[in-house]
Formats: sequence, structure tokens, C-alpha cells
Amino acid sequence: MPAPLRLGLAGLGTVGIGVVGIVQRHADLIAARTGRAVVITAVSALDQTKNRDADLSGYAWEADPVTLAKREDIDVFVEVIGGSEGPARDATMAAIASGKDVVTANKALLAHHGQSLAEAAEDRGRVIRFEAAVAGGIPVIKALTEGLAGNAMRRVMGVMNGTCNYILTRMESAGLPYDTVFEEARQLGYLEADPNLDVGGIDAGHKLSLLAAIAFGTRVSFDAVEMEGIGAISIDDIKLAADMGFKIKLLGVAQMTGRGLEQRMTPCLVPADSPLGQLQGGTNMVVLEGDAVGQIVMRGAGAGAGPTASAVMADVMDIARGTRLSTFGRPAASLATPIAAAAATPAPYYMRMTLLDKPGALAKIATALGDAGISIDRMRQYGHAGAHAPVLIVTHKATRDDVNHAMGRFAATGVLVGDPVAIRIEEV
Amino acid sequence: MPAPLRLGLAGLGTVGIGVVGIVQRHADLIAARTGRAVVITAVSALDQTKNRDADLSGYAWEADPVTLAKREDIDVFVEVIGGSEGPARDATMAAIASGKDVVTANKALLAHHGQSLAEAAEDRGRVIRFEAAVAGGIPVIKALTEGLAGNAMRRVMGVMNGTCNYILTRMESAGLPYDTVFEEARQLGYLEADPNLDVGGIDAGHKLSLLAAIAFGTRVSFDAVEMEGIGAISIDDIKLAADMGFKIKLLGVAQMTGRGLEQRMTPCLVPADSPLGQLQGGTNMVVLEGDAVGQIVMRGAGAGAGPTASAVMADVMDIARGTRLSTFGRPAASLATPIAAAAATPAPYYMRMTLLDKPGALAKIATALGDAGISIDRMRQYGHAGAHAPVLIVTHKATRDDVNHAMGRFAATGVLVGDPVAIRIEEV
Repeated sequence: MPAPLRLGLAGLGTVGIGVVGIVQRHADLIAARTGRAVVITAVSALDQTKNRDADLSGYAWEADPVTLAKREDIDVFVEVIGGSEGPARDATMAAIASGKDVVTANKALLAHHGQSLAEAAEDRGRVIRFEAAVAGGIPVIKALTEGLAGNAMRRVMGVMNGTCNYILTRMESAGLPYDTVFEEARQLGYLEADPNLDVGGIDAGHKLSLLAAIAFGTRVSFDAVEMEGIGAISIDDIKLAADMGFKIKLLGVAQMTGRGLEQRMTPCLVPADSPLGQLQGGTNMVVLEGDAVGQIVMRGAGAGAGPTASAVMADVMDIARGTRLSTFGRPAASLATPIAAAAATPAPYYMRMTLLDKPGALAKIATALGDAGISIDRMRQYGHAGAHAPVLIVTHKATRDDVNHAMGRFAATGVLVGDPVAIRIEEV
Repeated sequence: MPAPLRLGLAGLGTVGIGVVGIVQRHADLIAARTGRAVVITAVSALDQTKNRDADLSGYAWEADPVTLAKREDIDVFVEVIGGSEGPARDATMAAIASGKDVVTANKALLAHHGQSLAEAAEDRGRVIRFEAAVAGGIPVIKALTEGLAGNAMRRVMGVMNGTCNYILTRMESAGLPYDTVFEEARQLGYLEADPNLDVGGIDAGHKLSLLAAIAFGTRVSFDAVEMEGIGAISIDDIKLAADMGFKIKLLGVAQMTGRGLEQRMTPCLVPADSPLGQLQGGTNMVVLEGDAVGQIVMRGAGAGAGPTASAVMADVMDIARGTRLSTFGRPAASLATPIAAAAATPAPYYMRMTLLDKPGALAKIATALGDAGISIDRMRQYGHAGAHAPVLIVTHKATRDDVNHAMGRFAATGVLVGDPVAIRIEEV
């Protein structure tokens, strides 16, 4: 049996301790499957005295992850610190510079610096693997990079922030407004220190940008992801969408169009009976569409010690087995700079508005839609008390420009109460 | 760039032509992703004159797949002939003997001869890859062997025969009996020449035995799969199960128990709102449960030219990239001979019976259940015309022995009309 593969583990939070757990618990299983022992040589975290509920006594301790990354007695630098800058980035660069392979769970780091890191690694003949960075325990990076490698990818989609999906499904099941459920989620510890990373779609946007790079052979371009969080989703929209047979999800969609690469992380309606529509709570789901394979759906835990450590160990064990892949599935130098395309792929839209209850109001809205070139698939006017009538419209396919144009015309009719809402319906 | 990877393609049916299509259409994409051109050198099929709607003019033709397998100008033998014996087996053995890697879609071959083939390949330093053999386009072999390699697997499950799932979901949606839908499926060309391969569970059983080998590090033991087809499933059971919140699926389940390896491919009830319960038509689904990752669900097309060729090409491209794995995820010589355990893991059961409509009938059944040590979760007696009362029972967890015991006691009560039905409810 070859010499053990030696890991330097930077970060001893939930995920780091999860990795320690697997390495210790499954030493025999790992050696049987990879033909090689996998051991942790040294670890690093901010506070050595903290009780971590794990036996770290056999590992050297480095206060500084950069020092850890440079140690001569490690082969693979495992980075589960997090953050796109600072120690995580410095240590990862140092690891590559000193000839180490890297396994990371850090979506922010790769979303911002993926290209330069991949180039640096490939220049040194090293690999960077990041299964744990996207959708937690779901082996989606592997599925996309390897399992579907024979496909021209058409579209990749995903619900990849469990906290947002928890909030949206909890709003529906309990009939509670956003603010209340947001506060619940905070109390439960589901939110990042900066909640906007979750509810603003940034965390999920990071993940989408990594999937897009692999799927379409382009440089990671997180800055081009159109992001819209879930903060404006009302319980009314959730209920009325359900009444029309839809669920609202914070859905990431990346597709290559004739205009360029479209990347969106926005609230969308999806059919209630689709796999995405049926996804409850904090679970993640990724949908991969290829020209040969059709649609592949993967579902699993998107966070947590066990699932994330499972993904880290998959990468580690690939390295132990001798599998060497380019970071984004092809040489970094060959990745194209994508043309960022505004989200203009036509789709049906859900529209909700409140009308003054006077003759001809609905006709004015219908006319405005027609003038904007949008035709109506379904319309529903709800019974109402008082002078206001809630109206729901599901349109046929329209571009967002047309929708925005129609919304402007609605305003000019003088029959609206408050602002209308329009949400894209993603056809899944 | 290294020399092209040269394929010898044996079998030019739907899948073979699908492989030709991807190799020809995506030559640039494949080279970009693997760093190496992938070309077809030679092909083999029974009838050279048949019009196959593909340009095969650039390929050498071999009437005999064994001759193809031995050609010096191929690196990888791609076997999409099918069948556990005869040309597929002979040619695969010949390919290995002459130092070729093998990519196969042949579940029957591996279910019957996986161990000897894996040993032969590993002795020669060759690989056998078979993503296409299980669940078509779903990259489940890769997910299990590599993506979840850090897990001790607890259970693997799957709906892996699209024809059976089509028949069961069509029976429910159209309210038609089994025989009618079976005949429909035959007319549509969904059935194998020997339909028992589909509806008897054999094809799906082959696939389950391969997943079990990887998951639990055991030799493939197809003969130990308990198989029961769907032929006895009545439209009454489908409707009544739905009424209790369940769907009936031909579900494969493999799990390692204290008694040994349990492998079942049998009709089961699953909750209607679970991913398995929601699976409609010919789509496949595999559920992988690991101690770290929890539950991973994968869904996609289980058959067809494009999906199956996608899986074949994933294996080919792994070889082109230099990825070398043991056939079943660890060296063949290290695979344990499993102890086959009868399916004795306790589960809730669904029971349906018809009772004579006379006082005390239900009490006798309840007593018989209690005497067999089985407690009742839910019972429902249906309104009825005439002297017969249909009764449904959902039990708490019981072993199958207990259930069989109870069924015997039922018979002795003298209040049953016809035979009672008992179907396991798999907790998913």
C-alpha cells in the first residue's frame, strides 16, 4: 500500500469536526476504498483551547492556516474556514504555491477567485476540488463534471440555500408573514451572521456561478449573476401562487443563450407537482439538463456537519485514488470569458395586482397587457370585501422587458391599488 | 495532447447509435473536457447492411465482437450488446485478456459474472466501468462509488425499471387493471422480448445487486436478491393504498443488517408525498443513504438512447482523463462474500382483506393480529354492497414472519372471503 495521504485541516468548526469524525471513524473503510490510508497530520483554528468534542491530540496544531498550508508533512490542504478573503484565501494560495492539492468547501472564495486559483493550481500540477462548496452533501460537482461530461449542458438550476427554502415553505405551511419566519430562522440559528448572504441570494449565487462555469466552460463570473432575494415575497403571493398550482422558490438558473450566459438567482414560481415544487424545508435540489441525458434531479442535505464532511471526503478520497481533474472540468486557461446576458429568456409570468372595483378596470389591465404584446393564459379575480378586487394573471411566455413594459402601462390605467407584482414562472 | 483514445463499439442498437452520436457531435467538447480526442475505430453488430441512421463509414467493421475486442487499434471495448452469456460475455473476456479497458451497459453480465470479470480486469491492470448498466442516465454508480465514498452506506433503494413504474402509475391514473396496461405497454414497445425481465423484477434486480456490491463491499450476489414482480398488484390495491396515502412501487432495497445482506426487489408501499411516491411514468429514481450524508435522491431517465449513451460516455471520458477505479469501488479480491439474509427487517405492512359481513368478523381479525404480535396503526372498513366488507389495515412495524403468521391465523378465523393481501411499507 502506498504511503498515507496526509491532510492539513484548516478550520475546526462544524464541518472541520465532521471531517475529523469521518477520518477517524472510517479509517479502514477509506483505506479499503482508496487503497491508501488517509490521515490528518495537522490542524488549524483560531482557538486551540475551545472544547470541540473531538480527539485532536494526535494532530500538530498551527495557529496560522498559512503556516499549516506550507507544512512539508501534508499532501492535501483542506480548507473549511470560509470567506472569500483573508486567511482562507491566503492559506489556499500558500498551499498551492507549496505544491499541495486543495480541497475546499468555500463557495465565496471560488466564486470570487476561482479562475486565478485554478490557474495557479494547474501551473503547479495541483488540483483544487470543491464538492462541498455547492449543495452540501449532494455530489453535484462530480455529477456535472464527470457523470454528465458527454453532454452539452442546456441549463442548470437549483434550490441551493436551505435557509431560504425553509423560510418560504414555513411561510406557506404556517401561514406566517416573511418577517415572522425570518425571525424564527434567526432564533433557530439558521441564518448566517450577515443574513443577506442567505436571504439576499448571495450564498446561493456563489454556488450557481460555480455550476455555470463547469456546465458551460466559462470563467466563474459571480458578478454577472442577477440576484434578487426573498425579502419581498409576501404570504399573499405564496398563497395565491399555490392556488394557481405553483410554489415560490429562490431558484438559481444558468443557461447559455444566443445572447450569452444568463445567470439568475431570483424568486421564481415552479409547478407545485414538480420535484422543485415539492421540495420542503432546508433540503437542497439541483437540476442538470444535458442534450443527451435530459433532466437529472439530485436532492439532499445542503448543509450540516455530516453532509458537508461527506463531500469534503469524496474529494479527498478521489485524490487518494489518484484521480486528477481540472478545477472546472477543463484546463483553466481554456475557460472562455462569458458574455453576460441579461435575463431575457421568455417565460410565463405570474402577476398579482389589486384593482379598484369599478366597471372596466379589468378590461383596462387586459388591454395594457395586450398592448405590451403579452397574452393571457389564465386570469382569476377573487371575491372581495370593499372596493378592491385582487386579480391574478398567468401569462403566456413573455420577456422580462415586455413584462416591465406592461407594468408601466398598468400604472397608467389609474385602476390599480398599490404596486403590482410580477414573478417569473420557470418551466421545469 | 496525448494520442486519441480509441473505442471499439460492440452493438449498434439504440444505445450504440447514441454513443456514435455523442462521439461525432461532441468531438470538440470531449477533447476540451478530457484533454484527449476520443474516436471510434471499429464497430460490430449482427447485420452490417441495416440502415442505422448514422454515418459509420469511417469505422472498421467486425462481424464478430470477439474479433473486435482483440483488435490492436482499440484502447477501450464498449459493450452494448446485452445478455449475460454468449457474445457479450465472450467479447468482454477477450477484451480484458487482450489488455483493453471495458465500458459496458450490461447489467445482466455483471450481475452474473461481475466478480470474475472484475478479478480478470484487475489482474491485467484494466478497468471495467458500467455507469450505463444501472438507472440509465443517472450517474448513480459514480455518486455511490466516488461521491459518497466517505460514508458507510446504510441502505440503497431504487425504482429502476421504468416499464414497471409506467405500468403501475398508468394503472392508477387510468383506473385500469394490470392485464390491460401490460398489453398497452407491450404495444408501445416498452417491454423486453421476455417481459418477465421487466415485470418479474429481474432487470431491476440485476441493477440492485450491482449497487449492493459497491455500497457494502461485497461480491455481487444476484442469486440472493429476493424478487417478486408486479403481476399480482391489483387496481384495488393501488386505489386503496392511495386512499391511505401510499403509492405502490416495484422498489429495490439493499441494506446490511446484523443478520447479513438483505436484497429485495419487490412491490412496496411508499408514502405518496415522498420523492419515490411522486415518481411518475418511466422515470427512474435511486435513493442512497449514508451515515454522514443522510439521504441523497437521484432522478432521471432510466433508459433510451441519449441517457444511456450519456452514461457510457461518462465512463469513456473518465478513462480518457486517466481516472482508474476498481470495478466495484475497491479491489475485487477484497470484496466479501455476503451472507444472504432473508428480508426480515421489520416494517409496517399494508393488509387488505374482504370479510364476511357478520358480527364479530372484524374482532376476529384484530385478535388474530394481536396473537401474532402485530399491533394496528390504522384500520379502515369500507362501505359495501352485499355481504362482503373490504377492510384495510396499516400495521405498526412487524417482521414478515409475523405477518405470514398472522395471515395463517386470518385463514383460520373463517370470516375471510378470498385471500388477504399483505404488502410491505418501506419507510423512506
